[in-house]
Amino acid sequence: MSTIARPHNPESDPRVKAVFDDIRATRKSDSINNLWYYLAFDPPLLEDIWRGVKQVMAEPSALDPLTKELIYIAVSITNSCSYCVHSHTAAARAKGMTDAMHADLLRVVSTAARTNQLLNGLQVPVDEAFDREA
Amino acid sequence: MSTIARPHNPESDPRVKAVFDDIRATRKSDSINNLWYYLAFDPPLLEDIWRGVKQVMAEPSALDPLTKELIYIAVSITNSCSYCVHSHTAAARAKGMTDAMHADLLRVVSTAARTNQLLNGLQVPVDEAFDREA
Amino acid sequence: MSTIARPHNPESDPRVKAVFDDIRATRKSDSINNLWYYLAFDPPLLEDIWRGVKQVMAEPSALDPLTKELIYIAVSITNSCSYCVHSHTAAARAKGMTDAMHADLLRVVSTAARTNQLLNGLQVPVDEAFDREA
Amino acid sequence: MSTIARPHNPESDPRVKAVFDDIRATRKSDSINNLWYYLAFDPPLLEDIWRGVKQVMAEPSALDPLTKELIYIAVSITNSCSYCVHSHTAAARAKGMTDAMHADLLRVVSTAARTNQLLNGLQVPVDEAFDREA
Amino acid sequence: MSTIARPHNPESDPRVKAVFDDIRATRKSDSINNLWYYLAFDPPLLEDIWRGVKQVMAEPSALDPLTKELIYIAVSITNSCSYCVHSHTAAARAKGMTDAMHADLLRVVSTAARTNQLLNGLQVPVDEAFDREA
Amino acid sequence: MSTIARPHNPESDPRVKAVFDDIRATRKSDSINNLWYYLAFDPPLLEDIWRGVKQVMAEPSALDPLTKELIYIAVSITNSCSYCVHSHTAAARAKGMTDAMHADLLRVVSTAARTNQLLNGLQVPVDEAFDREA
Repeated sequence: MSTIARPHNPESDPRVKAVFDDIRATRKSDSINNLWYYLAFDPPLLEDIWRGVKQVMAEPSALDPLTKELIYIAVSITNSCSYCVHSHTAAARAKGMTDAMHADLLRVVSTAARTNQLLNGLQVPVDEAFDREA
Repeated sequence: MSTIARPHNPESDPRVKAVFDDIRATRKSDSINNLWYYLAFDPPLLEDIWRGVKQVMAEPSALDPLTKELIYIAVSITNSCSYCVHSHTAAARAKGMTDAMHADLLRVVSTAARTNQLLNGLQVPVDEAFDREA
Repeated sequence: MSTIARPHNPESDPRVKAVFDDIRATRKSDSINNLWYYLAFDPPLLEDIWRGVKQVMAEPSALDPLTKELIYIAVSITNSCSYCVHSHTAAARAKGMTDAMHADLLRVVSTAARTNQLLNGLQVPVDEAFDREA
Repeated sequence: MSTIARPHNPESDPRVKAVFDDIRATRKSDSINNLWYYLAFDPPLLEDIWRGVKQVMAEPSALDPLTKELIYIAVSITNSCSYCVHSHTAAARAKGMTDAMHADLLRVVSTAARTNQLLNGLQVPVDEAFDREA
Repeated sequence: MSTIARPHNPESDPRVKAVFDDIRATRKSDSINNLWYYLAFDPPLLEDIWRGVKQVMAEPSALDPLTKELIYIAVSITNSCSYCVHSHTAAARAKGMTDAMHADLLRVVSTAARTNQLLNGLQVPVDEAFDREA
Repeated sequence: MSTIARPHNPESDPRVKAVFDDIRATRKSDSINNLWYYLAFDPPLLEDIWRGVKQVMAEPSALDPLTKELIYIAVSITNSCSYCVHSHTAAARAKGMTDAMHADLLRVVSTAARTNQLLNGLQVPVDEAFDREA
């Protein structure tokens, strides 16, 4: 159950069709996953989100594609976004994440959450040594 | 201002001294940052947290050390732990993170947060295609 | 599956019946949604929560009713409360939220989350110009 | 720096004075901490928040006062509310929390955060055995 | 203390200057607040973030500018982004938010957070009545 | 649907069997809940997580076992971890949590969340009086 009605035949709108075609070409796959399908209820929002995700995740940049997917999963776990955890775990596997890497990712994410809450409880002052301008 | 009193001369406790010595040896540095210094108020907790962080972050594993730091920063940002963001950004730089990689990390983290909240608002059903057992 | 057992015939308790009657009168609807039905397991908690929500959301105040629903949805999305997102999206529609307004809400919420995490990563000092007493 | 201007002489408003007097009587202390002082910018909000906190934290209930403070700190840590962590840690100490109890609280909070994120990453189905109605 | 070094004379880079000029023109103000100043460390990221914020917050859309600021503040509070809370509270005031509206915003945000956590604790099933396709 | 495949016959691995046997002995129950079953996909991670949870939750410490479960639930609610809320609510009941205590827990958690967001919105300075070293 979504908060919006599932669009019927969204590709009859040429703006939606253009985005879906670009998703298919970028991912070399015919399937359009539910995020994009439902987002078609508002074509400008669909265009913006797709452009943003494509630019950050599909274009070459300082970090390699798999590292970016691991970071994406880490954020999605911490924000408790079930859909995002599922979709980006699948994406990471498609880009080469093994079970051992998945376990290591979960190890780092859960350890970070542990010390994050420890520090939020201790309220320790930040060391001067961490100051880049010092 | 911390929620606990800053310990005075914590290394007079041999359990604390053993942890501090291991921190110095592991990091090849004489300085002990505030997290560990304050945590010395409870030696068993200090031992547990250090053992956990060392095992996950300092021992060889499926992911390389810099990738693990980037994931750690991503989680710390999302949990809004100021101390952790500062300390692990410094750690990532020490392991080779450039300004361009830092910018790319922030780009991925903020893009993930954006789509996380979009999905939490849409409540779209998870695609069957993401099911590993399908 | 809830963490509490679904109450059987909760309106046999007069405190519960009084709250349910007020919910029906306030909302001009016969149905009692699951939040209130399950909360009937503890009548004082039911009374407190209903009184608080009614006072803030159903009584005239500085912000209009639809704006308050949009803010409520924004918080619920960010806290990843699926039930709350569903119930308050339905409430916002009943108060006039169109698809275009819904899309705009999602646009603002996701943009805010993006810059929130960017800032939590940058740890930029707050400008003096934002100080109301300056 | 607060987002609202610090009120000048707030007790000149009798509604504020009544709340401040009740805070002093309830806490057996002359000092009014900043939360209440700043909240005086809107007397109805001050009244509501104080009434809610007093009812939940200062009146006898199923859980004892110290346990309630520990739970309050746990939530405040997880929501990254620095002010709340400081004020409720002080309150818990005033009610008998020792350093050993504080360390144990931090141990439980950080362990829970660790497994929370692990589970959010695994997306494991909830066991039927946890169903209260099963 | 930021995680990046404060850029020196960032407008010597024409891409940065173009963004800063657009910020000044859009806001009809000479000052550049710290977010944009520090973001200049990576001109493409600066361009992306400014374009996204400007498009969502400064261009006419289904929701009015002040409502969008209130939603932005609500999300920033919930994500515990201190900088964002300060900057968008200032922006909302500039667009007409009174003290009474500010108090009402805080009332709705805190009430929503209260019921969000109540529901996350109860894990109540979502009512069929909330299904838009039912 | 989980992000990892449900392991088949995990106890054929002696490291997994040793952990499962210890879970059964510690809990005096034959059943292994899904968290541990799925975690068996990576035996070292299973060992670490079980050791950490057992040490904190099952061994005598400054706080009693039921109080620790209540704190665990509070954190799990705030992190929006549905599985954790279910499993630890069941654990708390097994250790003596009554409906009245459960209602009180929810009352404290939701009140804390309310004031947390109020304070994150007000950005009130921390009182000097809360400083342990003052």
